Amino acid sequence: MPEQPQIRSLKSGESFTGHLLAQEAAFKTSSKGSEYLELKLADASGDLKAFLWDIRAIEGDMEAVKADAFLKVKGRVDEYNGRLQLRLDKVRFAPDSEVGDFSQFFPVSRRPVTEMLAEMDALIASVKDPWIRKLLAALFVENAELRAAFAKAPAAKSMHHVYLGGLLEHTLSILGMAERACGHYAELNRDLVVAGVFLHDVGKTTELSYERSFGYTDQGNLVGHISTEVQWINREADRIQGFPDELRMQLVHIVLSHHGKLEFGSPVLPKTPEALLVHYLDDLDGKLEIMFRGIRDDGGDGNWTPFSRALERMVYKVRWPKAK
Amino acid sequence: MPEQPQIRSLKSGESFTGHLLAQEAAFKTSSKGSEYLELKLADASGDLKAFLWDIRAIEGDMEAVKADAFLKVKGRVDEYNGRLQLRLDKVRFAPDSEVGDFSQFFPVSRRPVTEMLAEMDALIASVKDPWIRKLLAALFVENAELRAAFAKAPAAKSMHHVYLGGLLEHTLSILGMAERACGHYAELNRDLVVAGVFLHDVGKTTELSYERSFGYTDQGNLVGHISTEVQWINREADRIQGFPDELRMQLVHIVLSHHGKLEFGSPVLPKTPEALLVHYLDDLDGKLEIMFRGIRDDGGDGNWTPFSRALERMVYKVRWPKAK
Amino acid sequence: MPEQPQIRSLKSGESFTGHLLAQEAAFKTSSKGSEYLELKLADASGDLKAFLWDIRAIEGDMEAVKADAFLKVKGRVDEYNGRLQLRLDKVRFAPDSEVGDFSQFFPVSRRPVTEMLAEMDALIASVKDPWIRKLLAALFVENAELRAAFAKAPAAKSMHHVYLGGLLEHTLSILGMAERACGHYAELNRDLVVAGVFLHDVGKTTELSYERSFGYTDQGNLVGHISTEVQWINREADRIQGFPDELRMQLVHIVLSHHGKLEFGSPVLPKTPEALLVHYLDDLDGKLEIMFRGIRDDGGDGNWTPFSRALERMVYKVRWPKAK
Amino acid sequence: MPEQPQIRSLKSGESFTGHLLAQEAAFKTSSKGSEYLELKLADASGDLKAFLWDIRAIEGDMEAVKADAFLKVKGRVDEYNGRLQLRLDKVRFAPDSEVGDFSQFFPVSRRPVTEMLAEMDALIASVKDPWIRKLLAALFVENAELRAAFAKAPAAKSMHHVYLGGLLEHTLSILGMAERACGHYAELNRDLVVAGVFLHDVGKTTELSYERSFGYTDQGNLVGHISTEVQWINREADRIQGFPDELRMQLVHIVLSHHGKLEFGSPVLPKTPEALLVHYLDDLDGKLEIMFRGIRDDGGDGNWTPFSRALERMVYKVRWPKAK
Amino acid sequence: MPEQPQIRSLKSGESFTGHLLAQEAAFKTSSKGSEYLELKLADASGDLKAFLWDIRAIEGDMEAVKADAFLKVKGRVDEYNGRLQLRLDKVRFAPDSEVGDFSQFFPVSRRPVTEMLAEMDALIASVKDPWIRKLLAALFVENAELRAAFAKAPAAKSMHHVYLGGLLEHTLSILGMAERACGHYAELNRDLVVAGVFLHDVGKTTELSYERSFGYTDQGNLVGHISTEVQWINREADRIQGFPDELRMQLVHIVLSHHGKLEFGSPVLPKTPEALLVHYLDDLDGKLEIMFRGIRDDGGDGNWTPFSRALERMVYKVRWPKAK
Amino acid sequence: MPEQPQIRSLKSGESFTGHLLAQEAAFKTSSKGSEYLELKLADASGDLKAFLWDIRAIEGDMEAVKADAFLKVKGRVDEYNGRLQLRLDKVRFAPDSEVGDFSQFFPVSRRPVTEMLAEMDALIASVKDPWIRKLLAALFVENAELRAAFAKAPAAKSMHHVYLGGLLEHTLSILGMAERACGHYAELNRDLVVAGVFLHDVGKTTELSYERSFGYTDQGNLVGHISTEVQWINREADRIQGFPDELRMQLVHIVLSHHGKLEFGSPVLPKTPEALLVHYLDDLDGKLEIMFRGIRDDGGDGNWTPFSRALERMVYKVRWPKAK
Repeated sequence: MPEQPQIRSLKSGESFTGHLLAQEAAFKTSSKGSEYLELKLADASGDLKAFLWDIRAIEGDMEAVKADAFLKVKGRVDEYNGRLQLRLDKVRFAPDSEVGDFSQFFPVSRRPVTEMLAEMDALIASVKDPWIRKLLAALFVENAELRAAFAKAPAAKSMHHVYLGGLLEHTLSILGMAERACGHYAELNRDLVVAGVFLHDVGKTTELSYERSFGYTDQGNLVGHISTEVQWINREADRIQGFPDELRMQLVHIVLSHHGKLEFGSPVLPKTPEALLVHYLDDLDGKLEIMFRGIRDDGGDGNWTPFSRALERMVYKVRWPKAK
Repeated sequence: MPEQPQIRSLKSGESFTGHLLAQEAAFKTSSKGSEYLELKLADASGDLKAFLWDIRAIEGDMEAVKADAFLKVKGRVDEYNGRLQLRLDKVRFAPDSEVGDFSQFFPVSRRPVTEMLAEMDALIASVKDPWIRKLLAALFVENAELRAAFAKAPAAKSMHHVYLGGLLEHTLSILGMAERACGHYAELNRDLVVAGVFLHDVGKTTELSYERSFGYTDQGNLVGHISTEVQWINREADRIQGFPDELRMQLVHIVLSHHGKLEFGSPVLPKTPEALLVHYLDDLDGKLEIMFRGIRDDGGDGNWTPFSRALERMVYKVRWPKAK
Repeated sequence: MPEQPQIRSLKSGESFTGHLLAQEAAFKTSSKGSEYLELKLADASGDLKAFLWDIRAIEGDMEAVKADAFLKVKGRVDEYNGRLQLRLDKVRFAPDSEVGDFSQFFPVSRRPVTEMLAEMDALIASVKDPWIRKLLAALFVENAELRAAFAKAPAAKSMHHVYLGGLLEHTLSILGMAERACGHYAELNRDLVVAGVFLHDVGKTTELSYERSFGYTDQGNLVGHISTEVQWINREADRIQGFPDELRMQLVHIVLSHHGKLEFGSPVLPKTPEALLVHYLDDLDGKLEIMFRGIRDDGGDGNWTPFSRALERMVYKVRWPKAK
Repeated sequence: MPEQPQIRSLKSGESFTGHLLAQEAAFKTSSKGSEYLELKLADASGDLKAFLWDIRAIEGDMEAVKADAFLKVKGRVDEYNGRLQLRLDKVRFAPDSEVGDFSQFFPVSRRPVTEMLAEMDALIASVKDPWIRKLLAALFVENAELRAAFAKAPAAKSMHHVYLGGLLEHTLSILGMAERACGHYAELNRDLVVAGVFLHDVGKTTELSYERSFGYTDQGNLVGHISTEVQWINREADRIQGFPDELRMQLVHIVLSHHGKLEFGSPVLPKTPEALLVHYLDDLDGKLEIMFRGIRDDGGDGNWTPFSRALERMVYKVRWPKAK
Repeated sequence: MPEQPQIRSLKSGESFTGHLLAQEAAFKTSSKGSEYLELKLADASGDLKAFLWDIRAIEGDMEAVKADAFLKVKGRVDEYNGRLQLRLDKVRFAPDSEVGDFSQFFPVSRRPVTEMLAEMDALIASVKDPWIRKLLAALFVENAELRAAFAKAPAAKSMHHVYLGGLLEHTLSILGMAERACGHYAELNRDLVVAGVFLHDVGKTTELSYERSFGYTDQGNLVGHISTEVQWINREADRIQGFPDELRMQLVHIVLSHHGKLEFGSPVLPKTPEALLVHYLDDLDGKLEIMFRGIRDDGGDGNWTPFSRALERMVYKVRWPKAK
Repeated sequence: MPEQPQIRSLKSGESFTGHLLAQEAAFKTSSKGSEYLELKLADASGDLKAFLWDIRAIEGDMEAVKADAFLKVKGRVDEYNGRLQLRLDKVRFAPDSEVGDFSQFFPVSRRPVTEMLAEMDALIASVKDPWIRKLLAALFVENAELRAAFAKAPAAKSMHHVYLGGLLEHTLSILGMAERACGHYAELNRDLVVAGVFLHDVGKTTELSYERSFGYTDQGNLVGHISTEVQWINREADRIQGFPDELRMQLVHIVLSHHGKLEFGSPVLPKTPEALLVHYLDDLDGKLEIMFRGIRDDGGDGNWTPFSRALERMVYKVRWPKAK
């Protein structure tokens, strides 16, 4: 796939040729009875609306032009009502093989993956408890497939850290706070906390689908990430000769209880200090990410972000002291 | 241990010598400043209060005379305020080895265990789906330890079927209704339903302690029976060569969702017809057992059972047509 | 009304002349400022969109062309975006008298009404308790108007069994399960259960309006089906010389409590085994119907039905063993 | 029954002979092994504890000495720990016939019944709507049995106006406020409101038992006062030739909805202004009665009444301006 | 600004020139690709849709043509689908200064402001308690800015009394009922109740913005009207030499608790009779206003108003006796 | 007051003479009819039961011997049923003046007050924002009365940090975590967070009474600590010339919202990152304190602490790795 300009850099009047991901695609009919194609096209830098007014200009299989497909398009950038859009001349389906590296079509973490993986490996190496270190190494270092998925998955479908690499970024951010908390509350077992944070959301790698648009897998809907994580901990602990039952039980407990309440999908409440801490830091990190992103990204005029369904509130954007 | 009369058969004025389980034990002081021992003693047929007015009559270690211990007692049956009680002359701690067969000291199912196990085996043999049959056989037939525990455990600590053998009796009762429901709703996969019922509470064998008084184990409090069951299904399915992922996922789903709501400890809602059915039949069977037992056992005069905390209501005892 | 093809059997390119029910009707304006008529037209086999681009082609009273009216239309079947639609040349209002038998314009139960009524009568005849049998006969056999309404009404406005005959079909399905349950749980009074099921929703015949689109009547909104049923039971029991107060009270209780919870509109909780059973079987039958219909009817590609508001979840469509 | 002093007027050291109601009665055993009888005895002015240390002093049938029975007792008033109690010498069961007028044994309204009935009759006579007036007269004037019960019943078992005559007093108090509200909000139909208030709790005459201690009847537990009231309205409206359906429906609606929420036992929400008003004034009157009584009756030192379970709070007793 | 006809008085075919408030404004594109402007224009008498099909006819700054701006428009009244709309020929932004008196562009109370202020002043003068009278006078009479805002603000953003002057009208209506309630329940301190009603919503003057469309201010979203009112009471009581602490505490309590429940934003429950009364009368008055307005204003055919989100129900419009 | 041994150090058989706080006091009667006095006596190190079998041995005013009074007692230490108790020979009321320093009779923080105050002052001095520093200094440094109360108050009546000095200890612990969190999340305004933590519970100094037993004051019950804090912030900000409105609003918001949910008494939800953080760290610190204290102090045998009503769960006491 040749170089192409990013959506965010486009300007009205320019022409554009390149591959884009169709997040939405709909054939509509005008009041005159003619059909047209309305698209929402995206790359990692953003998205815009696009219109093909004459659908006979579609090349190849018309059925293949649908949501979650890559399209090769040619057209001109227009400004309409203050927003850019594409007025297309040509559209055709593009097979995945033609596109190559998918990552340029999705939002990604601002932190480089290699840097995050290095931080993760250092954290695992710092664990003093041999059983915990072995368990983490088995899952996050030695299991190449899981390691790759863990580095790629978003942290959620629609709540917080919703971008590739978000799961790893979120996990590392909690770990940073967790280290600090273990420094403050001396009674906490730091290695247990570290393990709990690493494990608490790793099952999202199979709960979510994130090859194209983000969604839930069948496993995600029928089983959920928490029960998947428990399965993995048990399988791995079965393999490690002599893994202590007490430790297994406490790790499983942290994972099971980390949503904090039964009605949020945790079948048990946190009943150890470590489980309680992991729950609070996870919840706090996710909510702060939503707030900070809302304040940072919202381009609107007023003092408030739009209503956040995840937080069930709007966020106040004015920072004290006010920027000059 | 020699023969001894059952508590239910005792009459006022008789003397009694034998072993009983101390469900409660407290040293109290009278207003005159003298100490006495107040006990609640039980065998499988019932329980009664007992008093030892002179604690110097305790033989051997006084510390060992406490709740959940077996005691060898000697005394006389008294009637007080319409209730029988024991006025004791002698009390001593009795080691478990002296007692032998515990089952005569706990409430037990009215159905013989061997009959129930035979019914269970027949049901497993009737499963046509080979994967399901193998999985059930591995857990309930070939695993002797689990089979024995499954035949012994109560169904709950305090809600319904609270007696030895109650778990198996409850499971078989649901299975009876499940067969009927699969006859009525033709779209249901009967083998899947049967497996779901068998598996839905089997983890209670480790969630509950029932050697003496009934309670929760650490595993029960920290992990719970549902997650334990999921672990067992996964471990067994890992061992069966070629066990289909789709089937494993649907079985795990039935087990995970069988409490019907997140706030009741199911991390996912029932999303297949089979999961929905298992949830309803389990819930119905437990609640009907409480009602029928309440109506049958309550000796009170009025038309209502005492308030049931499990049902959050009293039950109306008058049956139509009224017994003559 | 002459023969006409069913909507489900139409093919693109065919012409169509006939009567259809307007479920929706809206006059809209195009960007060119011309008005057009957009309709949703239905018969019992389905519905489709229809457009009349020149509203001068409406014959007779334009005001009468609105939702819930029958229309005589003439036009041609078109395919648009994979869906059939009608491009109309002529539209006129058709009085009810012209249409005759309404039933061909509404979704109806798959079971023939006469068969269902026969099953109902046999069930009533099988009731051994003379008081109960008399009461059921008075309402469902001798009261011709109620009998007719009971055979015609849907079971709900939007939850389950939403089609003509749905109330009777739902009632009979629960009765089937109820017979089985009474076979399983011997303590249940079968005749009481049968009466409870018959009576539990019969008030929907006045709670719902179902001559055209389905909705609630004023009586439905202000009083509700449960209180209406209680009124009918009391009126009928007043008429039957010597009807036992105890029985009346227990029947009224089953009806009042069958929604199972106060927040679902039952002013009392089920406090007899029969009331508990009727509640569970009613709830189960309604939810299973939604699931089975969702799995059967959904034409979508994926493994999941659309989100069901009645169930507050999506339903998993993959059946084990997978169809080949 | 001869004259006897009221409990409230007793003084330490006095002897007492007379009839009292046993609200509680228990045979207990002392640490010395002797049995004694502990009673809670009441007349309309109050209650006190009583002890019979030698149960051989019971005359006649010992079984008959139990809660809800009248007893003839003889003894001496003692002060113990700041509270009066009776140290009894003799106790015997007294048949109801011996006691005569029960009303001197129960708490009663401070308002004379005849005055309240006159106020009630005047209110009914003031109703201009002939249908409503006929309906109220039929129930509250012409039905002597219901009229008597309505004048005697308490308003609740344990929440507010818990004394004989409380139902009528509570009803009249709401009616007073209702008149005022109809003067303020001119759109309200005053006669409809008056009828709604009269009818809203009249079913408590059968929901509650109040011959001895206050409790629920079987009808109260299985059907409830609201559904009973609906039955009575319907039966009476059936009898009045030409009673308008619209009016019947609106009256039934006010009664059904007057608890304001489904979870409080109203199967429908108030959907007319009159229904809304009746709900608010009923709720307000009951809660204010609890508060005023709490402030008036509480003899404690502090600024707060004891925790009220009905209000789920304590009430602040300090009145502004403070009494001097 | 010259005279201009009110929206409510317009007739199809008339031409219109004048100033209107743009409640909504959107540039849209037709299927032919041409842009047009769609507006919702309002004055105090109502609102209607308006279209400018050729956006080149906008005079001056196009960016300024947006929601909450005043526009000078010229066009012709059209009827479309039974509703009037404006087909515009010219549109331009109009600065506020050109418009003068805003009040003719917003819904206003039906009661004249001067009449309401006079009623308010008389009520304050009638307060006998000197501390309370001083406090009320300081806030509502002597503080000219607050007095003006109190006379102008709506009572809510979207629930009840949503029009200019609504806050004062709502407050006076509750005061009318409060007087009546204090007449009925003699134990109530009337002056305390009057003060509580005056103060309970006065903070809405800063919680809401109501210069253009109604909304929440930053103070409203971050602090809320209740805490603002507490601040004002405290500040004013600090200024009045010798203001009694007990009275201050009871006034603050009424204000804090008047939403009646923690989940509705009251940090404490009403714990005095006066606080309880203010809560009930406030709630009742708001809900009745919604009902009466719904019944009065709804032009629809049926017996029911549209679903009210504030009441979470539809309201029954049929009044008994039915209007002839 | 002379030296006296601490309760925790007493041994069976020793005699004891000294002052103790009566946490409970009740005159009871034995079955023989003799009165005795039962006490719960406490100093800072613990509490024990005490009995005076002959109440004539009370010197001076018997009425004064009641809960919350100091008593001078003389007696002997007894062991009963494994617990120590006092068998008293003499008891008399002791006026507060005789006792001197109260602190030896209440549980106190393990951290010395002077150390905590120094830490507090250093934190205030470290605040860079001049407005925030001034506000904190005015309240916590310059207001000697508030400073003293802040150093003495417990953090709650019954949830966490329930001992003298607990409020300050809890505040400093959150501040420690808050510093760490601001190091981790760079977008947070550290000074705003510090101020929020300082202010969030300072009103407990007037919400709680803690001179004797811990309880709520009238102000606590009617107004609550949050609204009191808002009053203090506003009063102080009014006094500081030029205090910015924006800052005042954000500080008030943090305080108002720090309980996190409306149903927990916060009238607004946290809508800034700083408010969210303060809520989470406060909640976490309180809950961890309960857990750690439960694990540390519980002397029971099992693996679980007693059920904690504050946490609505039991806490697992087994620490990984297990102590050897």
